[in-house]
Amino acid sequence: MPELYHHPLSAGSRFVRLVLAEYGETVDLTEIVPWERDEGLLVLNPAGTVPVLVDETDGPVVGAAVIGEYLSETRGARIGENSLMPSEPAERAEVRRLVSWFLDKLNDEVVDYLLTEKVFKRHAPATNGGSAPDAAAIRAARGNIRYHLSYVGYLVARRDCLAGRGLSFADLAAAAALSCADYLGEVPWEEDATAKEWYARIKSRPSFRSILADTVRGNPPVTHYADLDF
Amino acid sequence: MPELYHHPLSAGSRFVRLVLAEYGETVDLTEIVPWERDEGLLVLNPAGTVPVLVDETDGPVVGAAVIGEYLSETRGARIGENSLMPSEPAERAEVRRLVSWFLDKLNDEVVDYLLTEKVFKRHAPATNGGSAPDAAAIRAARGNIRYHLSYVGYLVARRDCLAGRGLSFADLAAAAALSCADYLGEVPWEEDATAKEWYARIKSRPSFRSILADTVRGNPPVTHYADLDF
Repeated sequence: MPELYHHPLSAGSRFVRLVLAEYGETVDLTEIVPWERDEGLLVLNPAGTVPVLVDETDGPVVGAAVIGEYLSETRGARIGENSLMPSEPAERAEVRRLVSWFLDKLNDEVVDYLLTEKVFKRHAPATNGGSAPDAAAIRAARGNIRYHLSYVGYLVARRDCLAGRGLSFADLAAAAALSCADYLGEVPWEEDATAKEWYARIKSRPSFRSILADTVRGNPPVTHYADLDF
Repeated sequence: MPELYHHPLSAGSRFVRLVLAEYGETVDLTEIVPWERDEGLLVLNPAGTVPVLVDETDGPVVGAAVIGEYLSETRGARIGENSLMPSEPAERAEVRRLVSWFLDKLNDEVVDYLLTEKVFKRHAPATNGGSAPDAAAIRAARGNIRYHLSYVGYLVARRDCLAGRGLSFADLAAAAALSCADYLGEVPWEEDATAKEWYARIKSRPSFRSILADTVRGNPPVTHYADLDF
């Protein structure tokens, strides 16, 4: 069974867990502590980041988007034509653009701020970055997420799913990133009914169940987090 | 002919120009002004970043790594088996990990600091971010590049090229990013003879010629920049 080094509130890790579940692949999860130096992880990935998937034959595969491509190439055929990655180069490019938009841009502008300020600084010892949250960083995240939510609504209003006709990596990447902010009660769903309806659809998929069962010690999710009718 | 929105000192743009040249594809270059809001660019890419490749039939393709994949899928077959992207999933994953290492991580930790402080702040009007350079940011970049250079040396000492046996996107991504710092005289080549020998090899390829001819008005390159025997 492959092993996934992850953190429950890492958007990229959640994306990979969703892809694995959609492809029907089970995985051993190894949780890292974000503020600790982990020599085992550094051997697998000199950048020291998650997710890292350790495949039994191919060894470590590093980074959310890279793992997505790898799983598509090695497991995608299992689920037939709707393999989360279209076959035409231009459509593939659009899926990849959006995966990067949500796992890089939304992550940098929203999720990273919220996690750092509301979770990591609270639990890390002072010697490893623990401190009081920075209210300005949280305000920046709250401003930024509104643009991202309205971009999701804009795309869904024009297309059935984020990148086009069918469910793709783009939907999983966006839902993974938004779900991290939602865990902390930081998605203003009332501002965009179209985006909310799309998220309710993705959230209801069986692949999402383990994400909705996540808990971080000392930071329980907000009450509506696992509610499919939020 | 496809059109590339780029900046001459953007690592991602240089990577795409190298891939295009290796595949024998000519391109129209449109240079953007990094500190100005460009409505035309925002229509093609709502993130407002370069590179964006506008293909005549497929339309805009956004982001360096995404354009690399797109060109590999649409033009890669032109140059036969050594198409810069291996065929095995594990080897492809390693190429992609390194493309992200150099175009994201090295870019964030080195190139972005140097460009912002030494070029953009100098030429932008004060209303758009122009100001005196921040010496601390330049020092950070100078510290960080040493680790990246030694990582290049480490990889090349164990492999013929960065990601394995043959030239790949990984080499082009690393050379593209390092060449931006080298333009500004900020690569301490004397610290790693193996990395320097590898860069001399990549720099000598015909695909590199247009990169070596780049100039930014008011910021000429250091004297050794275009020298193949530096």
